[in-house]
Amino acid sequence: PTSKLPDVGTSIFSVMSALANEQQAINLSQGFPDFNCPEPLMQLVTRYMHEGFNQYAPMPGVPKLRQRISEKTEKMYGYLPNPETEITVTSGATEALFAAITAVVKPGDEVVILEPCYDSYAPAIRLSGGVPVYVPLAVPGFHVDWELVKRRISSRTKLIIINTPHNPTGAVMSRQDMETLANLTDGTDILVISDEVYEHMVFDGQEHVSALQLPSLRERSFVISSFGKTYHTTGWKIGYVVAPPVLTVELRKMHQFITFCSVTPLQLAIADFIENEAHYRSLPAFYQAKRDTFCELLQSSRFEIIPSAGTYFQLLKYDAISDEHDLDFAKRLTKEIGVAAIPVSAFYHDKTDHKYLRFCFAKGDETLQKAAERLVKL
Amino acid sequence: PTSKLPDVGTSIFSVMSALANEQQAINLSQGFPDFNCPEPLMQLVTRYMHEGFNQYAPMPGVPKLRQRISEKTEKMYGYLPNPETEITVTSGATEALFAAITAVVKPGDEVVILEPCYDSYAPAIRLSGGVPVYVPLAVPGFHVDWELVKRRISSRTKLIIINTPHNPTGAVMSRQDMETLANLTDGTDILVISDEVYEHMVFDGQEHVSALQLPSLRERSFVISSFGKTYHTTGWKIGYVVAPPVLTVELRKMHQFITFCSVTPLQLAIADFIENEAHYRSLPAFYQAKRDTFCELLQSSRFEIIPSAGTYFQLLKYDAISDEHDLDFAKRLTKEIGVAAIPVSAFYHDKTDHKYLRFCFAKGDETLQKAAERLVKL
Ligand SMILES: CSCCC(=O)C(=O)O
Ligand SMILES: CSCCC(=O)C(=O)O
Repeated sequence: PTSKLPDVGTSIFSVMSALANEQQAINLSQGFPDFNCPEPLMQLVTRYMHEGFNQYAPMPGVPKLRQRISEKTEKMYGYLPNPETEITVTSGATEALFAAITAVVKPGDEVVILEPCYDSYAPAIRLSGGVPVYVPLAVPGFHVDWELVKRRISSRTKLIIINTPHNPTGAVMSRQDMETLANLTDGTDILVISDEVYEHMVFDGQEHVSALQLPSLRERSFVISSFGKTYHTTGWKIGYVVAPPVLTVELRKMHQFITFCSVTPLQLAIADFIENEAHYRSLPAFYQAKRDTFCELLQSSRFEIIPSAGTYFQLLKYDAISDEHDLDFAKRLTKEIGVAAIPVSAFYHDKTDHKYLRFCFAKGDETLQKAAERLVKL
Repeated sequence: PTSKLPDVGTSIFSVMSALANEQQAINLSQGFPDFNCPEPLMQLVTRYMHEGFNQYAPMPGVPKLRQRISEKTEKMYGYLPNPETEITVTSGATEALFAAITAVVKPGDEVVILEPCYDSYAPAIRLSGGVPVYVPLAVPGFHVDWELVKRRISSRTKLIIINTPHNPTGAVMSRQDMETLANLTDGTDILVISDEVYEHMVFDGQEHVSALQLPSLRERSFVISSFGKTYHTTGWKIGYVVAPPVLTVELRKMHQFITFCSVTPLQLAIADFIENEAHYRSLPAFYQAKRDTFCELLQSSRFEIIPSAGTYFQLLKYDAISDEHDLDFAKRLTKEIGVAAIPVSAFYHDKTDHKYLRFCFAKGDETLQKAAERLVKL
């Protein structure tokens, strides 16, 4: 059959992780921790399995988990979503994104996405017959040029997708950014997807501003988060969407036919573990320390360290070392130096190369140290 | 926003399970066992979690699981698929269906589906701009009228979806059926999805015939199965697709953006547990005994027992009891008698009512006995 996504190849995360394994390199490419999730969380999974909770969860998620997400949302962002009508549990944030996009994008609809960005946005849009409208983030700094966004909005704009804290750059949107977006969309039919999966990883005393904190933005937004990042369980695939009832109804129609429901014992375990507020309150300091460790060790390197305000990613600019395309440089780094990273061009539809590599610092200190030692030698 | 699936309401499985809970009725509606999965399987999950296997699995599934699926496929069906290029693990069979349909259906394409059928087929087709072409199974008996299928095939037919053993009717396709399908599609560009999630539940010495057993069918088919039915873990959401390399490439492009990967510790546990051949070899006898228990208890009832050759579902015809629409009758049964079942009209796009209810007999013997006692009273 002719392909519906002819230009999609193997994802950069699979490519670099495979190369890292093959070369026995330190894998700072794909974003995941190399330490385990909290022990009590695993014990809860074991308990629920043995108590027999291994059958279908309710389609929108187990009620207790939605209840706890609601309470946590209020604590964090001062808004208490209704678990019955505004919260849906999904099989990871990737499903959440796919379902939200599929729920609202029709053939010919335009969707504004800010590049660099996660590689699933554009294919999901295209599979619904939509047209991705790419707006580059400012280089350097990676802030949103809202004037540029405004100019790319048309009568066919159905949706704007934002991501804060931002993968791959580590940029964090300010309250001012969110207010500008709210003003830009106020009085229009434009919807918003706010991808906030790194909500608990914001550094240097800054605060994550959620789309849920701005009433006029909230009422047009799918706000997406995930427990994979928060609980060091990227392989558990439990995400969720907070959206107003009219949007939630459409989202659930998609979820019902995409995966129907997510893994029951994991949902129940997370529902209980959410009560442990100390865990997620400690994440900013925990990851800031890792960022600082990694960056200090790189002071003497020839890489330029791009400030990372959030996420567990650190950009390094290598133009003082090489003028290779970043994909070539990333591969060479893996093979010759034994450190795998993600070339940021992979997050641009046209593979724009600004000579940045993305390194995941969600790793034990010895791993970060070993990686830095190798990078300094360059 | 205007809905992309305006006529989709809450799924019948959610409706009936919710009503069953509310009425404290015996829930024989949604298909899931009320007994637990094998103990060693849960112990494997616990072990893998504690060993730290909680991060992203490779996108197509963990290699060990794909290897084991390949070996099991050869044992069962005499065909050894290549785990690298022909097997993809998905987040349940529902995702597998959605991904396969989305991979190949383009706007205007026609897809032949045989009614009654699982409620996700048509919405998935429509979301890709495809047109479901509904062909009814013969009533009674629920065999495929291949002449009718042939007449509904056109130059726009992209795909035919079959399901054997068949949900909701319990019908099982014969080798002759599969050969007819192979002949019908031979020399055309028509693709096939063969939904075989109940492959291990075929009774009375009959055999499940997989699309994988017929070379010319295999080379145009996505063959879908799931561990949820086989291991009594419908809430674990681990399914898979066997398809030739050219189809697998397109399927994985979808899977990559729909959920990216499925739950790691569950995949690893299942990979080990597959070696326990005795478990799945014992399933036909195990479920046949349940079917027989349930049906014997109903001999003295006014329901007509429709022979169930496979799956864990039993159809009962109630036209001697009532001439209500089956949805009304199912609701009244739940409220007045305390037994919840699925009205088969929910599996027809136009809610065709042949006065059948579907009962799930994947339940402990006491549950089946209690339910039968209530049904006999009618
Ligand atoms: C789903 S694999 C990609 C993981 C991730 O979020 C990243 O590395 O950017
Ligand atoms: C995913 S809920 C539906 C379960 C099932 O397969 C059925 O009851 O038919």
